[in-house]
Amino acid sequence: MKFNITLEEAQSLVLERCQPVETEFVHLNDALGRVLGRDIRAEENIPPFSRSPYDGYAFRAEDTIGATEANPVTLEVIEEVPAGYAPQKKVITGKAVKILTGAPIPEGADAVTKYEETGINGAYVEIYTSFKSNENIVPAGEDVAIDEIIAYKGTAVSPPIIGLMSALGITEVEVHKRPRIAIISTGDELLDISEPLSPGKIRNSNAYTLAAYCKELGTDPVIMGTVRDKTEEVARFINQGLEDADMVITTGGVSVGDYDVVGDAVKAAGAETLFWKIEIKPGSPSLAAVKDSKLILALSGSPAAAMVIYQLVGMVFIKKLAGWSEVFHPQTEVILKKDFRKASPRRRFLRGRLLVEDGTAYVETIGGQGNGVLRSLVGCDILAEIPEGSGPLKAGEKLTAYLLD
Amino acid sequence: MKFNITLEEAQSLVLERCQPVETEFVHLNDALGRVLGRDIRAEENIPPFSRSPYDGYAFRAEDTIGATEANPVTLEVIEEVPAGYAPQKKVITGKAVKILTGAPIPEGADAVTKYEETGINGAYVEIYTSFKSNENIVPAGEDVAIDEIIAYKGTAVSPPIIGLMSALGITEVEVHKRPRIAIISTGDELLDISEPLSPGKIRNSNAYTLAAYCKELGTDPVIMGTVRDKTEEVARFINQGLEDADMVITTGGVSVGDYDVVGDAVKAAGAETLFWKIEIKPGSPSLAAVKDSKLILALSGSPAAAMVIYQLVGMVFIKKLAGWSEVFHPQTEVILKKDFRKASPRRRFLRGRLLVEDGTAYVETIGGQGNGVLRSLVGCDILAEIPEGSGPLKAGEKLTAYLLD
Repeated sequence: MKFNITLEEAQSLVLERCQPVETEFVHLNDALGRVLGRDIRAEENIPPFSRSPYDGYAFRAEDTIGATEANPVTLEVIEEVPAGYAPQKKVITGKAVKILTGAPIPEGADAVTKYEETGINGAYVEIYTSFKSNENIVPAGEDVAIDEIIAYKGTAVSPPIIGLMSALGITEVEVHKRPRIAIISTGDELLDISEPLSPGKIRNSNAYTLAAYCKELGTDPVIMGTVRDKTEEVARFINQGLEDADMVITTGGVSVGDYDVVGDAVKAAGAETLFWKIEIKPGSPSLAAVKDSKLILALSGSPAAAMVIYQLVGMVFIKKLAGWSEVFHPQTEVILKKDFRKASPRRRFLRGRLLVEDGTAYVETIGGQGNGVLRSLVGCDILAEIPEGSGPLKAGEKLTAYLLD
Repeated sequence: MKFNITLEEAQSLVLERCQPVETEFVHLNDALGRVLGRDIRAEENIPPFSRSPYDGYAFRAEDTIGATEANPVTLEVIEEVPAGYAPQKKVITGKAVKILTGAPIPEGADAVTKYEETGINGAYVEIYTSFKSNENIVPAGEDVAIDEIIAYKGTAVSPPIIGLMSALGITEVEVHKRPRIAIISTGDELLDISEPLSPGKIRNSNAYTLAAYCKELGTDPVIMGTVRDKTEEVARFINQGLEDADMVITTGGVSVGDYDVVGDAVKAAGAETLFWKIEIKPGSPSLAAVKDSKLILALSGSPAAAMVIYQLVGMVFIKKLAGWSEVFHPQTEVILKKDFRKASPRRRFLRGRLLVEDGTAYVETIGGQGNGVLRSLVGCDILAEIPEGSGPLKAGEKLTAYLLD
């Protein structure tokens, strides 16, 4: 068991014990947001044929050499091709085909003019400028060429990916199953959300917040309820969670006090502790253990501390579990919008909002940054890092930040 | 009916005909992502009482005046208060209470010291520094004070809002119903996604892409299927859609050609046309009409053109319909990452990705920007605007942009 480690060490320790859940096939209509179990390769071109982007006429470009307003080229219209129909005739020199938006380019034709830029004269069309070969033709495969990969294994299915799969006729999609995540709340002070307050008690909020974050990530949370601060009881809940789910998250009881039973409970449950305490603020009192290749992540009972470690360690682990190929939050630099007046003897992560103004990317911190202030996570889409040993920071300083989403 | 209008005019014309759908009550467990039908006001403090952030001792700060390492103050420990329990005794001068993280501060005490910074001597605790009143005390209401609004009507419920509502014991939440959106595809060229390709035909992708975007937005899409390019048929589908849903979106058949029947179909369905054509690229051929206070939005059949107008007009309308108070995409300025070599005789929207690098917010355009290129919407989270009459643009230029999602 490692004690008091860096965030990066904590991430590695959990990731090296993580195997993605298996895959299943779902219908395209149920695939939105799911994590792909394999690359999606195009077995056809999109569009499947060269087509006209306009209502107009298709012809041979070389027939229009020298055409001007005063001296137009006149071509005989031999056919009309609406979208959805195949041309029946070949375009030879001196001939044109009336073509509608989206219709296939007839054999022999290599240019299209817009309807409104021509003159009509019975069965003949007049063309007033010269065209280059391929002018106004959308080539087959313009959007996606055959054999291209349109979406990669380990990425989530988004609306345009749904569209591309539709165009390719892919109706069944291999995706990772949704990992089940058991959530256990520990603490004698916890009431259920439907109970009235009583002296010394607070309602359980962490389980509901975590479940919502897990749902947002496309996983399947199971709220297992609240357990009192008794080692055997917590151990029993943990073992139940390991049986029902792919991973267990607990909150509370992970500090150093007499009632902090989670460290003992994890041992009593027969799990191997990977680490205890991470050298960051908030959320230092956190623990990870593993049993039967499943992770138990024990978070602080303080709401904001718990959620920051959920984001920085839990989510990273869950993404790998859920089959994502990229599991870390994108890291970048942003400019601090307002002074942050506290010193940071320890490495600290600020809850903030990304603000794009006039080409600059700012982080605006949200309200109080105390361990218990859940409100600072409302609207939080960025965690900005302050290095260990920093003094108060001035607006305009550049900080490394993790983009959540 | 207005013809060839600005984007802003198109937005106003649809918004002024929009009434949000009614509200319903759902359980907190089903509230994630839903749009609040009323402000959520705290009827209690979070936390409900002043509490200790540490395992340690609570006492009267004035008792520690002058305490030093060499000359500690010694206080008698009269009680132990774990989290979840109410203190039974009052702290008077010379006395202290052992207190655990999260436990209520006993009456009379106004400071807390960490356990590890004290000395224990039987029933007595030694304190080595002097404390200020309120030191190490988390006040009642630190996270949320009674009567504060924790979430506003017209905003979506996020995980931390779920957490705050849990803490307040709010188990039933008033949210707007999910608007139902009927999606109709028009075009003789369209095959169903399960059909093999045949000459001149393409598979219907727009309906599936749109349905996925609608789902992502928390609404309830209904794919009504494909209708041929016949005015009466399209009109019948539109009327069916208006009966089944709160809004109808069509794709295809909205340009100027002989087979572009949607404009006529809308009239035949008995709807009042609001506008036809918007002066932007892509997506100019778009139409909006209204019947029985319900909107019909007719989009281009070209996938990218359809989706850009969905984002800029459709989504703005749907957000109002769904009860959002802020319906427009946030607008800001970003820096063009790479040259954009085409001239823009018309006002143009580029599909791109927001890129935050070293404190700067860039837009990186995604692949081909043709009307048919759906792929350029994969990963697209920003639409950058190029003013009418612009020449080719150099990397480094500043553009106005709309941040999607």
